[in-house]
Amino acid sequence: MNNQLILEAETYINWLGKFGGQPNGGVTRLLYTTEWRQAQQALAEKMSECGLQVYDDRVGNLFGRLEGTIPHARTILTGSHIDTVKNGGKYDGAYGIIAGIIALDFLNKTYGSPKRPLEVVALCEEEGSRFPLTFWGSGNITGHHHIRKVDGIKDANDIRFEDAMLQAGFGQVAQKDCIRLDLAAFIELHIEQGVVLERQGVKLGVVESIVGQKRYTFIVDGEAGHAGTTPMHMRRDALTGVAEMIKQLEKSALRYHDQLVATVGFIEAIPNASNVIPGRVIFTVDTRHTNEKLLNQFAIGMISRFHEIAAARQLNLSVQMWMDETPTQLDVSLTARLENICQSQGVSYQRMISGAGHDSQIFQALCPTVMLFVPSRDGISHSPLEYTSPEDLAVGILVLIELLYQLGYEENTDENL
Amino acid sequence: MNNQLILEAETYINWLGKFGGQPNGGVTRLLYTTEWRQAQQALAEKMSECGLQVYDDRVGNLFGRLEGTIPHARTILTGSHIDTVKNGGKYDGAYGIIAGIIALDFLNKTYGSPKRPLEVVALCEEEGSRFPLTFWGSGNITGHHHIRKVDGIKDANDIRFEDAMLQAGFGQVAQKDCIRLDLAAFIELHIEQGVVLERQGVKLGVVESIVGQKRYTFIVDGEAGHAGTTPMHMRRDALTGVAEMIKQLEKSALRYHDQLVATVGFIEAIPNASNVIPGRVIFTVDTRHTNEKLLNQFAIGMISRFHEIAAARQLNLSVQMWMDETPTQLDVSLTARLENICQSQGVSYQRMISGAGHDSQIFQALCPTVMLFVPSRDGISHSPLEYTSPEDLAVGILVLIELLYQLGYEENTDENL
Repeated sequence: MNNQLILEAETYINWLGKFGGQPNGGVTRLLYTTEWRQAQQALAEKMSECGLQVYDDRVGNLFGRLEGTIPHARTILTGSHIDTVKNGGKYDGAYGIIAGIIALDFLNKTYGSPKRPLEVVALCEEEGSRFPLTFWGSGNITGHHHIRKVDGIKDANDIRFEDAMLQAGFGQVAQKDCIRLDLAAFIELHIEQGVVLERQGVKLGVVESIVGQKRYTFIVDGEAGHAGTTPMHMRRDALTGVAEMIKQLEKSALRYHDQLVATVGFIEAIPNASNVIPGRVIFTVDTRHTNEKLLNQFAIGMISRFHEIAAARQLNLSVQMWMDETPTQLDVSLTARLENICQSQGVSYQRMISGAGHDSQIFQALCPTVMLFVPSRDGISHSPLEYTSPEDLAVGILVLIELLYQLGYEENTDENL
Repeated sequence: MNNQLILEAETYINWLGKFGGQPNGGVTRLLYTTEWRQAQQALAEKMSECGLQVYDDRVGNLFGRLEGTIPHARTILTGSHIDTVKNGGKYDGAYGIIAGIIALDFLNKTYGSPKRPLEVVALCEEEGSRFPLTFWGSGNITGHHHIRKVDGIKDANDIRFEDAMLQAGFGQVAQKDCIRLDLAAFIELHIEQGVVLERQGVKLGVVESIVGQKRYTFIVDGEAGHAGTTPMHMRRDALTGVAEMIKQLEKSALRYHDQLVATVGFIEAIPNASNVIPGRVIFTVDTRHTNEKLLNQFAIGMISRFHEIAAARQLNLSVQMWMDETPTQLDVSLTARLENICQSQGVSYQRMISGAGHDSQIFQALCPTVMLFVPSRDGISHSPLEYTSPEDLAVGILVLIELLYQLGYEENTDENL
């Protein structure tokens, strides 16, 4: 089983990566594009070949279903998203779909029909790379998004969202409604997209929670001036002020709770000329934590310290928060079950948080949800260099199979879900 | 005299500012352009009207001469540059030329011919804004530049330097050679382009020396990473390292000698996305001082500290120095003479340094040279907002007239020069 899985996982990942494949090894598969449609069609055929009942919904989420023997039992859903960022990797999203198909195929061939329905889903969109509609696939299933609320959105080529959706064959009233009230659980297998598992030498991450995120843009105004004729003590240099803020932020983040991260990823100095003291600096802060209260407290403290630094330097500081996502605690019972499986299978694992957003945080609002991470080489993701070894892919799939077996073939009621 | 000067100075500045004048009030008068030629022609006519002998040299420096009565006496030269930066101000350079014409006109009308020749010069180019040839005008007079050493230089429109020069009517062998071995002194009146005089409430700056400058580009390489999935202690963030360097640089510069300035004017983070830890940051340092040894020591210390910060953070640091100009001490005797004039005229003044480069630093290699600054409103220069009040312009011209009188009409020998 293990060797066969290793081969299958790698083969399927490379096969799916050809849809939207780029010369540099990357993948660009944006929502409702030709590459996206071809990938969904190919997946539908693959699901069909594996004996799954295939269907899609109004926004283009694609499902493969293994019907259960208990009447009206609620469905166990696994999968991830089929879309990619521009020039992304072959594993992000795709792995969770491939794993689901392999798992359902194996379970069906080995044990026949499950007691309760098992489904794999290729969610139509998660990244928000073509339209600003992050979690469009899971969001329509859970009520987080609604197909009617996309008026006026266009892509970079000025194509209206509704036109792109219709062109791809979706968005028609006759098509299946997206909302799913029959879900017993959602399970997402995903690459970590970080360095933690690799550095710890651990094979699996059992995700307890997904971070909340706050993102800010700060504008610091001082006074531009001649780099030669303005003595040091007569300056109101916006950049030296911002340097102090960035250093202070790093210090605070390192001292705070382990899970807290804070990043200045973007900085722009104006006029940005070597012989002019910067009169204005714009920078962003991205800060994340799984505990909403701790995240709020950190952010309040940060802004307060920035104001102090600005005031001491006679700089003006303005701040705008443009993202505020609350943390998500994933299902405790499913998390514990995953740990038991890892222990019984002798797979090294650790409980961890997800520092990135995932469809699972959207599903957890609707049904018990859990996530599993496999290692990412060098932590690289959203890049043609994204890579997870076939052996590591297989370990994740084996644990997924066991979890789906327990939930689909052993459980008679929804009580434990 | 004073009221008349106030009117004249303002009128002439506005008149000259129309050549290359922009809708926003700025001036763009780049070397060898139509606007530049028209300005030089208009200045030639103005000089002629004032009774000066007008001539130009092979690169387009324009001179107006008041012949002296002592045979073969060396020449006292005053003036500044006629070119501007793109969308610069009306005062930078232009003031020194206008002042020279007004001064020579006044002296000629009041006292007749001087003992030794007095000349005013409109130097063809100082800013290096069209071609990378800073100090082209003064450089050809002093041997710092040579007309034959400009092979292959082109402007932003791909026009060859030689073609632009010929087109403007210069660069021909038959034209007057640029080198001047007959100069007894050079005197440059200029706007300060800084805030010192205004903040001190002083009318004139007697420039003792012009700073040396070193400019560097630093490249700091860390490791790009996901802003959510990379814990703080696993990061090699290039930007937080650079923030520490900038803060350290500011601290060192403030603690060092009063005159030392150090500026990070340019910064670029890569990839510069809010949710990605910057893997690379590029920034510049511009540092200046009038003492070469102190400047060198500061620069060595700075680079050493940057390496320490980089090493402690496992960052790679590379450094390239792309400007290294030595400081210039201006003429002590002329500086003292200017102070005496200020004292006897009751003009508030202070000895100061020039934090910007000027033609005077080029002339000082050839002949005794001195500079005079008048205040710049808010220290603004290279901008349409550049401004000096007519009253302040007039104060500078009165002192220049007295200096030219002493040197041209009172001194019989070159001994005191």
